This record gives sequence, structure tokens and C-alpha cells, in this order.
Amino acid sequence: MRKAVVLVSGGLDSATTLALAKAEGYEVFAISFDYGQKHRFELESAAKVCESLGVSKHVVFTLDLSAFGGSALTSAIEVPKDRNEAQMNAEIPITYVPARNTVFLSVALGWAETLGACDLFIGVNAVDYSGYPDCRPEFIEAFEKLANIATKSGVEKTQIWKIHTPLISLTKGEIIKVGLNAGVDFGLTHTCYDPAEDGRSCGHCDACLLRLKGFADLGMSDPAKYVQ
Amino acid sequence: MRKAVVLVSGGLDSATTLALAKAEGYEVFAISFDYGQKHRFELESAAKVCESLGVSKHVVFTLDLSAFGGSALTSAIEVPKDRNEAQMNAEIPITYVPARNTVFLSVALGWAETLGACDLFIGVNAVDYSGYPDCRPEFIEAFEKLANIATKSGVEKTQIWKIHTPLISLTKGEIIKVGLNAGVDFGLTHTCYDPAEDGRSCGHCDACLLRLKGFADLGMSDPAKYVQ
Repeated sequence: MRKAVVLVSGGLDSATTLALAKAEGYEVFAISFDYGQKHRFELESAAKVCESLGVSKHVVFTLDLSAFGGSALTSAIEVPKDRNEAQMNAEIPITYVPARNTVFLSVALGWAETLGACDLFIGVNAVDYSGYPDCRPEFIEAFEKLANIATKSGVEKTQIWKIHTPLISLTKGEIIKVGLNAGVDFGLTHTCYDPAEDGRSCGHCDACLLRLKGFADLGMSDPAKYVQ
Repeated sequence: MRKAVVLVSGGLDSATTLALAKAEGYEVFAISFDYGQKHRFELESAAKVCESLGVSKHVVFTLDLSAFGGSALTSAIEVPKDRNEAQMNAEIPITYVPARNTVFLSVALGWAETLGACDLFIGVNAVDYSGYPDCRPEFIEAFEKLANIATKSGVEKTQIWKIHTPLISLTKGEIIKVGLNAGVDFGLTHTCYDPAEDGRSCGHCDACLLRLKGFADLGMSDPAKYVQ
């Protein structure tokens, strides 16, 4: 059984990605990051998602990107609310965390190499997304190339590294549909950038708006709890 | 004054790299990594080097790569001793830490972006080195390409990322010569993979052997203290 390392944030996309990796027959090693994000709900969701779908191991890796600041997700900067599609497409928002996916994939790469794995799964999406540069296909291609140069296994050609992005060209609605078919319980996932103290989602940040639109496109109601 | 982030391990190469970044006129922000390495001497040396050469800020970033194991530098695996040049060139040694420079450069990239810097300096060397894949020019080129795709500043073309590797094609002796000219006090640096409890170097690991050869090639004595 081939091993794969799957990045699990606790959100809807990574839960679906994990379910798809399992459906493809991989033995899954899941990694989440305690990176200085402002709330803990997504890490709690990551643990629930891993337990629900079944993984061989789930590690929460700590590294404090909030030490550097520069993002609404790791500092006191306010999370933008009620942006429309044109605004989302116009610029990279302040919720961008500098080099986040580069850091996360690098750590996952190191872990995978010690496991003898050469398959990484990440739930990036370049359709209904916040415009982050490190969610685009060209970023994934560049990282995959790097992985094959940076590692012992890549250089010795004992493995060919592959970064799997099964969601990259799907709409949020399509992701939800695929996830439901693969057995994801979206009630366990957490998406909101700016939840209330009891964990309920704000319903107004980019992440909530994209998620709500996804369920609405399918004519379904979102099992997440919202403040209003 | 342009800002640069310099990776400082506490060793001879990164000290020289820091001095060269200063000599080029950069305002230097130094980063070291507490990554689960087996000893603390190199971090103490990194602090001394930064203080000696002068930096605007020195951060020690914590992330525990020893959680994954797989290297003699982060686990109970023994550090190989007294390997000759042919042995060093024949294979990637067990002191290789999976994805280490990828992780370190990624974190440095994130910090640099928040600082408004787009210049990273790393003291990798592909001549008198231990054969690590992530010290080679092709790795650096792939990472530089990635940096320009992965970041907001790269995508918006407000900055062009450059990974500076001033030592990449120098011998160890040449590095020492350059470092001395640039004002490095090599007595502050720590190179050994497997030091004694009092911090003295073993004199037999790959890193010690390469360092000793560098000083010998210059007809100089190494200011580091050795066990024998």
C-alpha cells in the first residue's frame, strides 16, 4: 500500500482531498499546522476529519508564522468582510499568509521522505478561491520540480515526487459534491477565517462566502453553524 | 538601504555569507533554526556571529524536524567519522536532514516578504561539502523560481526574488580567506556535527574534516577547539 502525506487544515477542501487520497488506495499520513493562526477551531476540525475518515497517523506540526505578522490570519489585522466576486478576483487579500503553502509543503516533504513516501496531497483550488499565489497550478508545478531536486530520494531517482491537487480546477460546488460522494462529513469541517468565540462561522469572510455559495449552487444547506 | 534575510547556522560558511551580505551594503536580518538538532552549540555560535558582525535583527525560529527523524543530526543515528573524500563524494550521507534547506528557505521567504525584502542569502557550497542535494546550484535555481511564483510580491512583480549563494563555487580554503577579509572571527563559529559535552569539536565528522582541510590549505591553524 503506497503511503501519501496529506495536508489537512480542517477545512472543506482538505477534508475532500483526504477522502480522495483514501479512495485512490493510499495509506494516509495527515499533517496539520499550528502556525500561529488566530483561532483553534480549524485544528479541532482537522483532528475530527482525520478520525472520521481514518488515517495511519495525524501530526500537528508547530511553527509560529505569526512571529512575522503581515496577514489578517496571524495578526491583529481585520479580516475583510462581504467582498464580492470582483473584489476577490481583483487582488491578493490581506488574509494571504506569506509563503504559507511553501512552508507547509516543505515540512510535509521532509516528513514524507522519512516515511518513504513520494506522494503529497494538498487541497488547493484555483477556481472559487481567495486569489492566493500559492494555490495556483504554476506554484504546484514549481514545488514539484523543487521536490525532485531538493531530496535524496529525488536525486537518487529512487522516487519521483508528485504533488497531487485533485481539486485544483473544481468549483466549490463540485468539491462539495465530490466530497459527499467520497464520504466526507462536512459538519466536521471548519472554514471561517473569523469565527465567534463559540466557533460559529461569521458568514461574511471570503472563506465563508465561497463555502456558502458552494452549498447554494448544489441547492443544499451548509451543516456549519453560522452566527446569523 | 536594501534589506536582506541571511540564514545563519553558526558555522563557518554562513558567518562568511553574513559578512559578505553586509559588505554588499544590505541591512541584514538574520535567521537561525532551532530545528531539533542534537546540540545547542551552533545556535550559541549563531548569536555570537550575529552580534560580532552586526545585524538589525536575529531571530531563532523553532520547528522540530527531529519529530520525523531520518538523520544523524536529529536522531540517535551515529554521525559517520573519518570518511575520506571518495566516500564523501560517493553518496548522500546519513547526516542529510530531509528537506532541511527547503524548509529553512521557505520560512526565510515568509519573513522576508513581511519585511519588504526580496533578497535571501544562504551559505551553501557545492565544492567542499557533504553532498547534500539541497546545497547544489540546481536546487537554488528551482527555489528562486518557486519564490517568484509563490509570493504576493513575486506575482505582483513588485519584487524579483533573488537567492544569493556567494560561496557556492568556492573551496573551503577560499571561503575562509574571503571570510577573513570580510572580518569574520572564525573562533566564534561552530562546525562540528558531533561535539563533546563541553562544545569542543570531534575533528572526525565530515564537517570537521572539511573545515580542518580548509585551514590547512591556507597554512593556518583553526581557532576552533578540538577534543584531540
